[in-house]
Amino acid sequence: MTQTNTDMKVNPDLAMERAKCNFNVLEVTHIFDGGENNTLMRKKIEDVALNSGAWKDTLGDEHMSPKEKYENAVRKSCLYASMMKNELAELSGLESFGVSSPVIRRTADAFFKEVSPFLLHLGMFVPTIMGQCTPEQQSHWLPRALDMQIIGTYAQTELGHGTFIRGLETTATYDPETEEFVLHSPTLSSYKWWAGGLGNTVNYCIVVAQLYTKGECHGTHPFIVQIRDEDNHMPLPGIKVGEIGPKMGFNTADNGFLGFNKHRIPREHMLMKNAQVLKDGTYVKVARHGKLTYGTMVFVRVVLVNEVAFNLAKACTIAVRYSAIRRQSRPKPDEAEPQVLDYATQQHKLFIAIATAHALQLCSTWLWESFSAVLAQMKGGNTDTLPEFHALSSCLKAISTSDSAHLIEQCRHACGGHGYMISSGIPHLYNFVSATRTYEGDYTVLLLQTARFLVKAYEQAEAKQPLTPTVAYLAYAFSGSKTTWDSSPDGIIRSFQALSAGKVASCVANMRTRMRAGLSQVDAWEMSTIQLVAAAEAHCRAVISDTYRKEIVRLTANSSPNVKVVMDQLTTLYLYYWALERTGDLLMYTSVSQKDLADLQIAYEALLSKIRPNAVGLVDAFDLRDELLHSALGSYDGRVYERLMEEALKSPMNKEPVNDAYSKYLRPMMKGKL
Amino acid sequence: MTQTNTDMKVNPDLAMERAKCNFNVLEVTHIFDGGENNTLMRKKIEDVALNSGAWKDTLGDEHMSPKEKYENAVRKSCLYASMMKNELAELSGLESFGVSSPVIRRTADAFFKEVSPFLLHLGMFVPTIMGQCTPEQQSHWLPRALDMQIIGTYAQTELGHGTFIRGLETTATYDPETEEFVLHSPTLSSYKWWAGGLGNTVNYCIVVAQLYTKGECHGTHPFIVQIRDEDNHMPLPGIKVGEIGPKMGFNTADNGFLGFNKHRIPREHMLMKNAQVLKDGTYVKVARHGKLTYGTMVFVRVVLVNEVAFNLAKACTIAVRYSAIRRQSRPKPDEAEPQVLDYATQQHKLFIAIATAHALQLCSTWLWESFSAVLAQMKGGNTDTLPEFHALSSCLKAISTSDSAHLIEQCRHACGGHGYMISSGIPHLYNFVSATRTYEGDYTVLLLQTARFLVKAYEQAEAKQPLTPTVAYLAYAFSGSKTTWDSSPDGIIRSFQALSAGKVASCVANMRTRMRAGLSQVDAWEMSTIQLVAAAEAHCRAVISDTYRKEIVRLTANSSPNVKVVMDQLTTLYLYYWALERTGDLLMYTSVSQKDLADLQIAYEALLSKIRPNAVGLVDAFDLRDELLHSALGSYDGRVYERLMEEALKSPMNKEPVNDAYSKYLRPMMKGKL
Repeated sequence: MTQTNTDMKVNPDLAMERAKCNFNVLEVTHIFDGGENNTLMRKKIEDVALNSGAWKDTLGDEHMSPKEKYENAVRKSCLYASMMKNELAELSGLESFGVSSPVIRRTADAFFKEVSPFLLHLGMFVPTIMGQCTPEQQSHWLPRALDMQIIGTYAQTELGHGTFIRGLETTATYDPETEEFVLHSPTLSSYKWWAGGLGNTVNYCIVVAQLYTKGECHGTHPFIVQIRDEDNHMPLPGIKVGEIGPKMGFNTADNGFLGFNKHRIPREHMLMKNAQVLKDGTYVKVARHGKLTYGTMVFVRVVLVNEVAFNLAKACTIAVRYSAIRRQSRPKPDEAEPQVLDYATQQHKLFIAIATAHALQLCSTWLWESFSAVLAQMKGGNTDTLPEFHALSSCLKAISTSDSAHLIEQCRHACGGHGYMISSGIPHLYNFVSATRTYEGDYTVLLLQTARFLVKAYEQAEAKQPLTPTVAYLAYAFSGSKTTWDSSPDGIIRSFQALSAGKVASCVANMRTRMRAGLSQVDAWEMSTIQLVAAAEAHCRAVISDTYRKEIVRLTANSSPNVKVVMDQLTTLYLYYWALERTGDLLMYTSVSQKDLADLQIAYEALLSKIRPNAVGLVDAFDLRDELLHSALGSYDGRVYERLMEEALKSPMNKEPVNDAYSKYLRPMMKGKL
Repeated sequence: MTQTNTDMKVNPDLAMERAKCNFNVLEVTHIFDGGENNTLMRKKIEDVALNSGAWKDTLGDEHMSPKEKYENAVRKSCLYASMMKNELAELSGLESFGVSSPVIRRTADAFFKEVSPFLLHLGMFVPTIMGQCTPEQQSHWLPRALDMQIIGTYAQTELGHGTFIRGLETTATYDPETEEFVLHSPTLSSYKWWAGGLGNTVNYCIVVAQLYTKGECHGTHPFIVQIRDEDNHMPLPGIKVGEIGPKMGFNTADNGFLGFNKHRIPREHMLMKNAQVLKDGTYVKVARHGKLTYGTMVFVRVVLVNEVAFNLAKACTIAVRYSAIRRQSRPKPDEAEPQVLDYATQQHKLFIAIATAHALQLCSTWLWESFSAVLAQMKGGNTDTLPEFHALSSCLKAISTSDSAHLIEQCRHACGGHGYMISSGIPHLYNFVSATRTYEGDYTVLLLQTARFLVKAYEQAEAKQPLTPTVAYLAYAFSGSKTTWDSSPDGIIRSFQALSAGKVASCVANMRTRMRAGLSQVDAWEMSTIQLVAAAEAHCRAVISDTYRKEIVRLTANSSPNVKVVMDQLTTLYLYYWALERTGDLLMYTSVSQKDLADLQIAYEALLSKIRPNAVGLVDAFDLRDELLHSALGSYDGRVYERLMEEALKSPMNKEPVNDAYSKYLRPMMKGKL
């Protein structure tokens, strides 16, 4: 471990845990980094980004007002941007990671407990210019954007309109007289709302608006709009822009609102790669390959899955290390208070979180690699598997964000009261991940998209048509008998597939019954959505289980024996855990018996005990530097109580022995003079 | 509704919902207030507490730093305390509510989005003086405390010690020479930590410490300790006191730490009702009735259950009203975008939250009334049912706080992105309720206490001994056959009891197997704790279901027909919802079939549609004034988008067109001069 050095005084309980870990921690680190070379490169990047200490605050931003937090985040964003341009860019081999590489982005977590106000500049503004501009447009905008001479964001969502993009109200009406578009916000609900950085930071913005030309609406299109003066940053005339106010998290991101009062922009500011308006106002649709749109969407979701897995890994690290240090109760009067990590209920809360962090990280990589391979093959024009990848990325995004948020809270609960403190480092993880459940596609909406794909696939299976790989198992629904239960890992995965198939079949049956009773297809679908969401969740769980297991088997093929054992234990734990969470479905859709489930429960409890001695080693293998954890409870040295007190003493409320509120309010009241 | 007035412009969708509500909203309000008179009194209290506008901030505290928030909260606490002493105290009939009445405390929610720094003064300091002081001690301390000449808190938890009170390290050693106790914090982990108000506000504190006299330890006892000078509020010598730093919520409560360096207090400052140390150092245990301790504990938990139900009701009100206003997607191209409340998935998220708020409020009242009745009867000395009430209050506290936190998040998710904004009013509800899951007894620890009682009761049932009422159903475990499924409400409640009995039986069987295999009783218990927690949860669910149903039947006996119908629908919904969440257990422990469960799912979906037209009426019946909701999404008039924008414009970040961070950081970077 990089963080071990001879001077460091480590909590003796934590040192003992590390001594008894029976596998090679570094080997596991390499597995999840994608190989030893990647680990080395990651460490090099972290050294460059973190060792200077530029990320440090003199006063922690948890003590600041939202406005102060924002200003401090701008300060650090500029430092970070400069580092990206200079020190980090000079690292050899950097290009293999790319600018948006999660590995680099992760170092930003040392600088920002929440996020940088530049997040959408690199995350959406630049990629949209790359993806939706003509080459001429790109050559105009891209160099200035990459050099941060201009800073931009992406404004699509409106105050009254989110998921349903066709419902957006902002208009861009072409005026052939002046060869300009007139941007307008006809109502309050049409104000753009939420775009990160929009409030005070950016001077440019991609705006998605309904395009009108020659009296006809052609649907939503993107436009690049200057909103603030490049010299003094004042909002331009016809533009109303500001910040939307405090949120649960993302408070350093100055999410903003934006309204237009007949604001004019040049015709060339429409992003014209996929559609154009000619000088005379003629609308021309350019043939567009669906691949591109899918590509960006799948990529954004892959990054999100990766990011929530990373944040879940942080929560695990904090909660497991602290649980090895915290001692509580004395079930045996003649023994010391046990480490809380020794309690089965604690292991039950924490080990599934470790396994899930592994599972989601591997699924994210697997999805991206499979998708890239398919894209490469697809040059011939075969786009058959695109809907499958869209459906997969939808449900993976929904389930990974939801599972991670839930498990981060579970890690916090496992830390007792201290988990509630900001200095534990967990609350801001929850606030961040909890938001990812909603943005870039709401949980329920995404699962219903996957469900639509599953129902189509089911109908194909029914018609004996071939199925794409991840839904091939839907054939189980037509086997005529319940799938045979078998508690081996492969047996459990098969059962998860069987119950997903059973749930899809049940949804289809219900919808057909409702349609026979006279309901329209739309209404029958709507009335079945609760079950359709559950079916999509079951499908996703089956895919995650299968992928996690297969990837671990593949990636540990050459591992040392003990690494193989502990990785096998965790995949098995994931399967047992979810089987025990889905006993009703298993009883309905497989041959499992009450006795089988009772045995599985006992086997699950035994597995927890087996994983227990390696628990600290497992979270050490995430190799998360203290700078990224921001946690008094989770730091590598385990000086938990010392750090909690050190953090408390930093509070401005402890700078004076008596707060001003005493003489102003308390004293008059206590002396009866109020 | 009080909030309707002719000048108020109400969102037309919300007005339409109110017009179509088919039951008498006020009748339902009366049911949950406990009768019409209580409603009238509540409204009178709210008028007095809220109409003056004293609760208003010129700048919302979400825009402040934690220190500013605290100072503002002290200001308002003093205003509120003065109002309690004057205007509110003068209200006739007030005494029937009592000082700690939830009805009065709720009005404080208009003043504090989080809590008052005086919370533990009235909530713990005063009650401890009342409960644990001798009459002489009371006459010394109580008048000054009630008049707020001194302000106190209650410090038990230490940095390294929470639930396990015997593990506390702070010592109080009696010195007969000077007739004083010497308070000392021997280690960092022995520092008191968490007490609300301790950081900067209070000048007195109840301290729980290990009592040593004549060289012997007599366990933990409470002492009253002055910690700050009464004239200048400076910490006294030998006292180290401060604030513990920012938390997820409760940031206005200045939770504090406290350490002693051989700090001396007079012998009389030990609270001597239950035990005394005589002048010569002799320790005398005063005979103590268990009733008292149980009484306080049950009371605190009853108040907590009531409080989380109240906060859940707020979240429901916000999410249901907003869902009636928000429109999204267009499943039928020729129709307008539907209200999101029309979607089954949305109803699935929200209606269970309404039913749960009802269930928990009724359970809290029922528990308190039954317990009070038992206490009154108990003067003869019969304390048989005390363990039952302790077990009940433990699991009810655990399940109500956990369910409420989960459902508040579900309400937030139902509000999409806007639920993430502080101005939605939901995030601070979650932060508050989420803490209640841990304090006053952690979720897992409390459920294991209930489980211990259940296992004992099971063994009594096995030995054919009589059982107390709430566990009488454990006899099912010995019936020899599965309980017959029946989808009537009573049938489902019976099934919930059967599955709880089945789970307890299974735990006992596993523990016995483990003990036969050579494990000690302690180890066999520990290895079964995951299942024991699940059994206690099942027991609690059965009790809540049974109580909710019976109380509604009783309380609506004289209601108008439509009120009866809608209340019956909600209790039924609660039962269907939880049956569908526990299909595995039902299949194992009752005769339910796969077909029965499929039918139940369809019946559940139909029930959602039946409740839908009355949804806004149901949340209106909570009768929560806008001042208590603090929500742009949930206000009575439904001016959602106008209010979101109004709140945004209040942000200090919108006060200047260009933030200072531009000239300081952004401009130099963008102009390449960084």
